[in-house]
Amino acid sequence: MQISFDEELGGLKEKILLMGSKVEEAIRLAMKSLVDRDTKLSRQIIRDDRDINDLEIEVDETCHRLLALHQPMASDMRFITSAMKINSDLERIGDMAVNIAERAITLNELPPLKPLIDIPRMASIAQEMVKVALDSLVNRDPVAAKKVCERDDEVDNLNDQIIRELLSYMIEDRAAITRALNLIFISRYLERIADHATNVAEDVVYMVQGKDIRHRRG
Amino acid sequence: MQISFDEELGGLKEKILLMGSKVEEAIRLAMKSLVDRDTKLSRQIIRDDRDINDLEIEVDETCHRLLALHQPMASDMRFITSAMKINSDLERIGDMAVNIAERAITLNELPPLKPLIDIPRMASIAQEMVKVALDSLVNRDPVAAKKVCERDDEVDNLNDQIIRELLSYMIEDRAAITRALNLIFISRYLERIADHATNVAEDVVYMVQGKDIRHRRG
Repeated sequence: MQISFDEELGGLKEKILLMGSKVEEAIRLAMKSLVDRDTKLSRQIIRDDRDINDLEIEVDETCHRLLALHQPMASDMRFITSAMKINSDLERIGDMAVNIAERAITLNELPPLKPLIDIPRMASIAQEMVKVALDSLVNRDPVAAKKVCERDDEVDNLNDQIIRELLSYMIEDRAAITRALNLIFISRYLERIADHATNVAEDVVYMVQGKDIRHRRG
Repeated sequence: MQISFDEELGGLKEKILLMGSKVEEAIRLAMKSLVDRDTKLSRQIIRDDRDINDLEIEVDETCHRLLALHQPMASDMRFITSAMKINSDLERIGDMAVNIAERAITLNELPPLKPLIDIPRMASIAQEMVKVALDSLVNRDPVAAKKVCERDDEVDNLNDQIIRELLSYMIEDRAAITRALNLIFISRYLERIADHATNVAEDVVYMVQGKDIRHRRG
């Protein structure tokens, strides 16, 4: 039995959302493995990234098939090309969760540097941005998508503040340097997750309005 | 006068290559602005990134037009969808050059920490990877493209080595911390340039062979 274009398009949307929920979960668990100092969990996140990578290839293949076998109308075409980009951003968010988990493994071997407050806060904003960006895709809601883009500055500021604080730890105590540097990397990974969520949101705006809002900020 | 599909496809290839030469130049100049402590040049790179961003939007529009108005054959379709991805990787390489230029501005205000040897070496490998990846696109040469992917490990190792060395500077002398941290960030930006060049090369392999080699390494 042949699958219709609309069915295949629906399947594509579902796969993107599945991938989205997997990367959201990966961010959440990577942060949990850091805060709870749970190296077993960190390793699980690194292992589970394979599923996200496999999904990326599947989504790409579906997009190519849809473009090749059908002649999609303008709005479907924009959905498919946006899906290809969103796919790649989601996969990279998964990679960032892996990077965080790897740093957590190093940090879990060392005594805690300080109670973690700002980094988990930054993580929950980044995670929320991914969630809202994907909701805006499902609801074809450019207003919600633009709100995601606006939050990017908040994350950038938090990242600057975290790096400044960790720098002062490093200067005060050389024994803190390795730990502070690993936390600085984690903060940067979270900032990049927020950047990727912003890319997804920009793609949603393009998809719905056919208008490119990249490089128009700031 | 209407432009033919083949002419428009040729124009797309030219734009991608123009973008490639602009980002290669941006990496080269960003490194020069760091080594020569030339803040004026750093600022120029930041300004000139706008041209790369404009080109990104142009390339994307061309790809969408080609997909929407024509019904490309399988191999042309793969070229167009690969062009969309390569476009986005090149734009991000431009962003990395901007990030390097920004760190150079900070470093140029401070006394030199050490003679820069490994970082410029890493930069020239990363720049070479971008160049070979784009040549492999022009020549539709998957063998050359795969060689780019192989060099990624070399850059990763160099990055690890640079970070270890800078860490030891930080631990020895607290006055070195800010400068060492900025150099660590630069090393990471170069590593990400190499990652993006690897993505481009993987897209070339896919484009030519219709085979997805992502996540098959290591």
